[in-house]
Amino acid sequence: MKRTEHRRSFDGWQDVYEHDSKTLNCTMKFGIYLPDGSEKKKLPVLYWLSGLTCTEQNFITKANAQRYASEHEVIIVAPDSSPRGENVPNDSSYDLGQGASFYLNATAKPWKDHFQMYDYIVKELPKLIEEKFPATNKKSIFGHSMGGHGALMIALKNPGTYSSVSAFSPIVAPTQVPWGEKAFSAYLGSDKTKWKEYDTVELISKTSEKLPLLVDQGTADEFLEKELRPDLLKKACEKNNHPLELNLREGHDHSYYFIASFMENHIAHHAQALKE
Amino acid sequence: MKRTEHRRSFDGWQDVYEHDSKTLNCTMKFGIYLPDGSEKKKLPVLYWLSGLTCTEQNFITKANAQRYASEHEVIIVAPDSSPRGENVPNDSSYDLGQGASFYLNATAKPWKDHFQMYDYIVKELPKLIEEKFPATNKKSIFGHSMGGHGALMIALKNPGTYSSVSAFSPIVAPTQVPWGEKAFSAYLGSDKTKWKEYDTVELISKTSEKLPLLVDQGTADEFLEKELRPDLLKKACEKNNHPLELNLREGHDHSYYFIASFMENHIAHHAQALKE
Repeated sequence: MKRTEHRRSFDGWQDVYEHDSKTLNCTMKFGIYLPDGSEKKKLPVLYWLSGLTCTEQNFITKANAQRYASEHEVIIVAPDSSPRGENVPNDSSYDLGQGASFYLNATAKPWKDHFQMYDYIVKELPKLIEEKFPATNKKSIFGHSMGGHGALMIALKNPGTYSSVSAFSPIVAPTQVPWGEKAFSAYLGSDKTKWKEYDTVELISKTSEKLPLLVDQGTADEFLEKELRPDLLKKACEKNNHPLELNLREGHDHSYYFIASFMENHIAHHAQALKE
Repeated sequence: MKRTEHRRSFDGWQDVYEHDSKTLNCTMKFGIYLPDGSEKKKLPVLYWLSGLTCTEQNFITKANAQRYASEHEVIIVAPDSSPRGENVPNDSSYDLGQGASFYLNATAKPWKDHFQMYDYIVKELPKLIEEKFPATNKKSIFGHSMGGHGALMIALKNPGTYSSVSAFSPIVAPTQVPWGEKAFSAYLGSDKTKWKEYDTVELISKTSEKLPLLVDQGTADEFLEKELRPDLLKKACEKNNHPLELNLREGHDHSYYFIASFMENHIAHHAQALKE
C-alpha cells in the first residue's frame, strides 16, 4: 500500500492511497480523510460510494465533507467507483465497464474476473482500513447516484454491519430502469431473477433489519424520472413499513453542488448513529 | 451575455455566464453565485481572482464558498484567470499566456491586444455585473496565488474602491521572484521600473489608504520560499505601518484543500466590511 497524496484539510488530513486488490485483480485507489483525533483514539468509518464515471477524486475535491468529518471525528473512505487499468475490461459508453461497476459481483464474461466491487466494498476494503488505519469496526455507508444504489443495497444485504445508511439521488430500482438494465444484463446475464439481489426496492421486502434510510433527492435532477425513481422507493418502504426520510430538495440537480449543499446533514446523521 | 450553467447550491444559485469582452478582445466566462436574498434587494459583490492555470471552474467547484456567501448574503464573482481562445496568444508553459495573465495590462507584443486583465477586473467586469445583476456598487476582492497578487495589487492601486481585500498564498513581490520575472518581462518588457506598479510590496510604500490586508499562507506550501515570500510582505507592512493579518497555517499546502479550510473566515471578513 502506498500513499500518493497527503494534504492538510480543515483539522485533519486528506490522503489518497493505492493498493493491489486481490478481489478486483488490479491496483485500486481510495481517498481517506483522517481527522486529527485519530492520532489519539480509533475512530469509526463512513464509506462513500461514488456515481458513474467518478474516481476517488470527485468526492474528496468537491463534496467539502472534510469540515464535517473533522467536527464529528469520523474517518471517511472514498474508493474509486470500479476496477481500473489496461487489463480490466471496458466499454466505450460511460455507463458500463470502468467507472460503472454498480457495486455488484459480476458473473458474466468478460467482467467477472475484475468486477467484484460488492466483495471489495463489503469485505476487502474494510479489512484493509481496520488493519492499517486508526479505525474501529463501527461503520456506516453513503453514496451518490450509482453509489447511492450501492450504499442502500449493501446496507440492506448486510444487517447489523452498518450503523446507518444514506444516499444522494440514488438509483433505487436498477432492475426497472435503463442504466440498471444495461449494466445488470452485461454483468449478471439475462436471467432477471438474479438481478433482484442487487435491487434496493426488491431488498426492502426481504430485509429482517429496519435500518432507517435517509435519502436526499433534487427536484431538478435530470435523471429523476427515468433512472432514479424515488417514488418506487417510497412505495416499497410504505408497503413494508420500512423507515424512510426522503427529502425532496427544490431546484437541486444531480451534481456535486447538490451533494455539498446537504453534506453536513448526512454526516451528522451518520456521526449520531456511529456514536450509539 | 449568455448563461451556460445554472445550479442550485446551498440557498442560492451558482451560475456561469459567457460574454464578449471589449477589453480583452475575446469571449470570457465568469462564475457568479447569487444568494436567494438577491431577488428582493441588491447585494454587495466579492470578486475572486484565481491562480495559474485556473478557469472559472476551479473556485466554483472546489472552494465551497457558496455556503458562506449564502449565509452572509454576498454575491461572489469568479472570472476566468486570463483571456482565452484560438486567437489569443499563448505559450507552451503553464506560467505564461492563457491561464497566466498576472492581472496586469500588457504593453509588449504579442500580448498587448488581449492581455488587459487589470482593466477587465477593475472596469469592464464590475460595470457589467452592476448593470446586469442585482448588485450594489459595494465591492471587495480576494484571490489565490497569482490571484492573491491580483487582489492585493488591485485593491492597493484603487483606494476607496474596495471595502476589503484578502488573499490565500499570494505572490506578494512578483518583481523579485521567478514566476513574476518571467511573466512581467514578457508582458511589460525589460524596463523593470514599469514592473513596480503591479507589485504589492512596492505599492505598500506608495498607497494613501491603509486598507487592512488579510493573508492566509500554508507552511507546507511548495512555492512558499521561492515564489510567494510572505516575509517580504510582512517587512514592507511593518516598515510602512500598513495593517496586515498574516495567518501561517501549519501543514497546509498550495491547494484548494487549504483554500476551502479557511474560506469561512475570509468571507466573514469581507461580509463585515461590506456591511459597514
